[in-house]
Amino acid sequence: MFSYQIFGESHGEAVGVVMEGLPSGILLDEDFISREMERRRAKTGGLSTTRIESDIPKPLSGVYQGKTTGTPLCAVIANENTRSGDYFATQGLARPSHGDYTGFVRYHGCNDPRGGGHFSGRLTAPLVYAGAVAKLILKQRHIAVGAHIAQVGNVKDRLFDPVQLTEEDFAPLWAESFSVLSPEIGEKMKVEIQLARLNADSVGGVIECGITGMPAGIGEPGLTSLESILSRHIFAVPAVKGIEFGDGFALASMRGSQANDPMRMKDGKVVTETNRNGGILGGISNGMPVIFRVVIKPTSSIGQPQKTVNLDTMEDAQLVVKGRHDPCILSRASVVVESAAALALCEALL
Amino acid sequence: MFSYQIFGESHGEAVGVVMEGLPSGILLDEDFISREMERRRAKTGGLSTTRIESDIPKPLSGVYQGKTTGTPLCAVIANENTRSGDYFATQGLARPSHGDYTGFVRYHGCNDPRGGGHFSGRLTAPLVYAGAVAKLILKQRHIAVGAHIAQVGNVKDRLFDPVQLTEEDFAPLWAESFSVLSPEIGEKMKVEIQLARLNADSVGGVIECGITGMPAGIGEPGLTSLESILSRHIFAVPAVKGIEFGDGFALASMRGSQANDPMRMKDGKVVTETNRNGGILGGISNGMPVIFRVVIKPTSSIGQPQKTVNLDTMEDAQLVVKGRHDPCILSRASVVVESAAALALCEALL
Amino acid sequence: MFSYQIFGESHGEAVGVVMEGLPSGILLDEDFISREMERRRAKTGGLSTTRIESDIPKPLSGVYQGKTTGTPLCAVIANENTRSGDYFATQGLARPSHGDYTGFVRYHGCNDPRGGGHFSGRLTAPLVYAGAVAKLILKQRHIAVGAHIAQVGNVKDRLFDPVQLTEEDFAPLWAESFSVLSPEIGEKMKVEIQLARLNADSVGGVIECGITGMPAGIGEPGLTSLESILSRHIFAVPAVKGIEFGDGFALASMRGSQANDPMRMKDGKVVTETNRNGGILGGISNGMPVIFRVVIKPTSSIGQPQKTVNLDTMEDAQLVVKGRHDPCILSRASVVVESAAALALCEALL
Amino acid sequence: MFSYQIFGESHGEAVGVVMEGLPSGILLDEDFISREMERRRAKTGGLSTTRIESDIPKPLSGVYQGKTTGTPLCAVIANENTRSGDYFATQGLARPSHGDYTGFVRYHGCNDPRGGGHFSGRLTAPLVYAGAVAKLILKQRHIAVGAHIAQVGNVKDRLFDPVQLTEEDFAPLWAESFSVLSPEIGEKMKVEIQLARLNADSVGGVIECGITGMPAGIGEPGLTSLESILSRHIFAVPAVKGIEFGDGFALASMRGSQANDPMRMKDGKVVTETNRNGGILGGISNGMPVIFRVVIKPTSSIGQPQKTVNLDTMEDAQLVVKGRHDPCILSRASVVVESAAALALCEALL
Repeated sequence: MFSYQIFGESHGEAVGVVMEGLPSGILLDEDFISREMERRRAKTGGLSTTRIESDIPKPLSGVYQGKTTGTPLCAVIANENTRSGDYFATQGLARPSHGDYTGFVRYHGCNDPRGGGHFSGRLTAPLVYAGAVAKLILKQRHIAVGAHIAQVGNVKDRLFDPVQLTEEDFAPLWAESFSVLSPEIGEKMKVEIQLARLNADSVGGVIECGITGMPAGIGEPGLTSLESILSRHIFAVPAVKGIEFGDGFALASMRGSQANDPMRMKDGKVVTETNRNGGILGGISNGMPVIFRVVIKPTSSIGQPQKTVNLDTMEDAQLVVKGRHDPCILSRASVVVESAAALALCEALL
Repeated sequence: MFSYQIFGESHGEAVGVVMEGLPSGILLDEDFISREMERRRAKTGGLSTTRIESDIPKPLSGVYQGKTTGTPLCAVIANENTRSGDYFATQGLARPSHGDYTGFVRYHGCNDPRGGGHFSGRLTAPLVYAGAVAKLILKQRHIAVGAHIAQVGNVKDRLFDPVQLTEEDFAPLWAESFSVLSPEIGEKMKVEIQLARLNADSVGGVIECGITGMPAGIGEPGLTSLESILSRHIFAVPAVKGIEFGDGFALASMRGSQANDPMRMKDGKVVTETNRNGGILGGISNGMPVIFRVVIKPTSSIGQPQKTVNLDTMEDAQLVVKGRHDPCILSRASVVVESAAALALCEALL
Repeated sequence: MFSYQIFGESHGEAVGVVMEGLPSGILLDEDFISREMERRRAKTGGLSTTRIESDIPKPLSGVYQGKTTGTPLCAVIANENTRSGDYFATQGLARPSHGDYTGFVRYHGCNDPRGGGHFSGRLTAPLVYAGAVAKLILKQRHIAVGAHIAQVGNVKDRLFDPVQLTEEDFAPLWAESFSVLSPEIGEKMKVEIQLARLNADSVGGVIECGITGMPAGIGEPGLTSLESILSRHIFAVPAVKGIEFGDGFALASMRGSQANDPMRMKDGKVVTETNRNGGILGGISNGMPVIFRVVIKPTSSIGQPQKTVNLDTMEDAQLVVKGRHDPCILSRASVVVESAAALALCEALL
Repeated sequence: MFSYQIFGESHGEAVGVVMEGLPSGILLDEDFISREMERRRAKTGGLSTTRIESDIPKPLSGVYQGKTTGTPLCAVIANENTRSGDYFATQGLARPSHGDYTGFVRYHGCNDPRGGGHFSGRLTAPLVYAGAVAKLILKQRHIAVGAHIAQVGNVKDRLFDPVQLTEEDFAPLWAESFSVLSPEIGEKMKVEIQLARLNADSVGGVIECGITGMPAGIGEPGLTSLESILSRHIFAVPAVKGIEFGDGFALASMRGSQANDPMRMKDGKVVTETNRNGGILGGISNGMPVIFRVVIKPTSSIGQPQKTVNLDTMEDAQLVVKGRHDPCILSRASVVVESAAALALCEALL
């Protein structure tokens, strides 16, 4: 059975992933994997953190002559450019809305606090590597996963056409470091991010993700519904606080006559005329594009003074977070959401 | 390890559940279980289906002298009042936005189509039974789960106070068959439902669920995040198309300075002054109430003519759904969502 | 993913099983299933217990028009002919070498003690039902599972030819209620059993199991080795205390030059000239018959006085077991071992 | 939930393990871990392979200030002293009784063949590392695991006293590189191994393993029986072909009156006077020492000419294995069996 396990801490030796249940003989296209890693990598320009690393994944096992062997694949990514000093300056002070306090309780104070440790966004680097491997598996089945930034703060872009969406629509999103459907809206989003940064603040947003080429019949009613599988993987991405499929929360105010997707035959295949259910019915894919949106909360690490507690003394305290942080992770989140979705699909399909 | 498996078909002999990994010695309070079953049961009055059954769960194993033994507990609920004729009248015609077509593909045409078979809302009866058992386990740990109808169509009620919420707030919701915070809003919702029914239509809505008494430290970053576990179970509930924790999708347009929940000590315990993260940080509970909302799509079975396909002939067709259906399942969904959440918590805790 | 869950207690309402991940469209041949249930059923004649039941499994779900639907299949078998009085007479007295004491500790005294409760051999009835379903799945892939009594007490029969074994060799074993390769040895075994019974004693033995038609390439090195999967399922059978594959423990005193199975091509297929590895190499099937033997300990319930403890008072005590017991379960164990093996294979294959 | 995943290939960059579900705060005693690694390491003197490596495990994650953090722990061990040339000389020729052919089928010819790849005994290095971590967890619960060589070829040593066994009995076994209860028998075993080596042959044997300090009540009837859990892990060790608990296969020829372990109270605790069931009843530990034996087949790589097939041409062939091999792995297997058992216990306990 396909599964994966992410490991590592922000300021430890390395982060990485072990993948099990991979098909053998998958060519690990290095250019493609590099492109995916590059999409996630922080860049200069003020939209993301100034902690910039080379992020070159190194497979230790499970690859022979450039192809997967089918035995467990472990890949590691060295941590560079760690500056633990920033964190020791505020040691003991839990960052609000971050995993500092909950991790402290969960792991009895034993987890690595430096740079967020295992809670760090740094852990999305091996996730993107694993996602790239997953995408190469899906590609053999003509399944593609693409995402775009649908919203940053109050700036919203248009959404995917849930009926007509094809893999071709993804090409420009994959090519850009800031994946949006409307470039001019993208510029407004960037302004929103810069404004947040200049205010020592951060801002949230929404990623929309589409899956094309999905065959009908994947998933099951109950705990192995396609929505269950996808949401379990998507909520493994830090900062995600919600997911909706198809028309999602907008379905609450609809009548059934509006929300039901009329069905018909087209070229010998069952299709729907609308796709308000996001390609999933009864927990099972129906052959239409799978569509979902996830909300990403504003980065919790901000430069403004915040009320918090000191975990060493269990007293009230004030915190001004130091260290290098993203004012908005949306620009880097598209590929992360795609990756988590691709991994979920491999779990559902293999 | 705690797990459960729902089985059954709408018009088969029985529906039921097997639960594994239960603690031994849990008193199965029959009055409580009956109350929970009653909350889900269809009732007269036009708000739900006219298929009304007694729904008395019968444990076959795992119970001795009224208490759980710790070995697998199987309980069955007989199917009564089945009227398969309604379904045979439209045999082969896939109901739009229902699992008919996807189930046909997934199970190669072998699944039981009568009354929706394994895709039927009928399967939520054993889910509520299992949820009641789960709640009795949680009760020993002083954890309570309560839900209310937050929206029906365009009628919205106020939401839980995410900071002050206590188990006492749940009592009126558990006592009512139509669980709302504001009775006058509830009346408006009922009107919305009746209007839909009179139009041979249906309507969707939102359920909000709260968990009180949740200890800090439950869950983990990654695939076993508390959000991952909860969402996996919640999406096992038919008709759910989205879930959001805390402020959810509203976080997209917030700044970090607004979204971060300030922390402080209170009575020797770490608390937050707001609870926009819904009681979960880094995938782990922080000791505040856990809050999430789920969107329930309008019942897909409606009495209006719809475009569909005939699965026997693979040709376009028109369908007027017969059978007895809920114009809105929100009134019955509160206890179902609570149940799925209680089961998820048992998985996270045991 | 294929899995199953047995439930029930010896003197409860029913025993049963829920099976998940079944392929859809498997015809549940009732004659075959009855034959399998009959093989396990106690019979008159002194070789087994005098608790004789009809053991008719009743599917509650997952079956439509005689075929599996692919959704969870629950089947129950009513408990009849329970005589709890026998057990209450010795209540509190742990039967040596039985699960009475360990169950008491594991379940904090809450498990059902009547007739051994969930530890009873009665639970092998649903196991055989599930095994019959599994065999019907395997049959579609031309895989067959057969077992015979290889030893009872000091009486040993010859073993399977591990190279030449075919499904045809199983036919006489499946037809007989006392499955042996040599009928005359079988008679000696029966004498051994009768002697034990007349001495208010019991006797152990060995079951040998073969799997034919097994394709090469099933299993993996590590925790999902075919030996790991088979042994996990076989040790779920009560009274099993050991398992060996191929030449098993005899390999300890061999040299590699004896133990290695020479390989060659035969009809375009790789075969081995001997099969001392029991058809599994590196945790993976090699296409030869899979062969293993399991040891069944003597029935722990015997009529002789035994030293034990009283779990109510935690004092030393003497016990003379009442109730109806098998002097030897070997005659009923062949089909049980086959069933557990068939279920393990479904887990490995599906 | 506790789990682990071994990865790596014999001649790849590294072998390693990822462990999940570890308790936090376990001090990773480096001296102890080194001792365990040393026990497995090949040594000069003709009893094991001449491929000798330093085998220093390097944790990449999950450790902070010398203690487990509770987040996934990945440790890698570099591969040194690889001599792939030996293997390329016989490329395509499947070694009889090795995983070459089955791995070729399972992984469609894509797995790394050099030095046995993922099937190599080299993979037991990370297993021993993981086992050492597991033992440190068990030590906190006063549980100890010890094993000795009970048989090599036809030379047999005495067995553990299954009733009186204590952790003190393990100390000399842990200190020696050739773990036997009787040193003089050990010398005879070594002669047996040298004789095999001088004949370009190999020899098998039996390891006996004991677990002391095991609390009563661990395990369950069915697929989570303690025997199921232990056997699943033990059969993950290469070359293991059988396992028996307590008196094991000898129980076949016993009467119940011999095989049943009389029970009595001792110092307020339930004990048994004999321990023919190996400390497990009904799948659950009974508080007595857990005892089991495993058979290790003779090393399949031998220097004599063998009949085999060429996987490239699918023709008959003859093979003389080159490369460096152990004439007997028993001397290195004690710690490997202990490790697998310790990991199984962590799975059962955590």
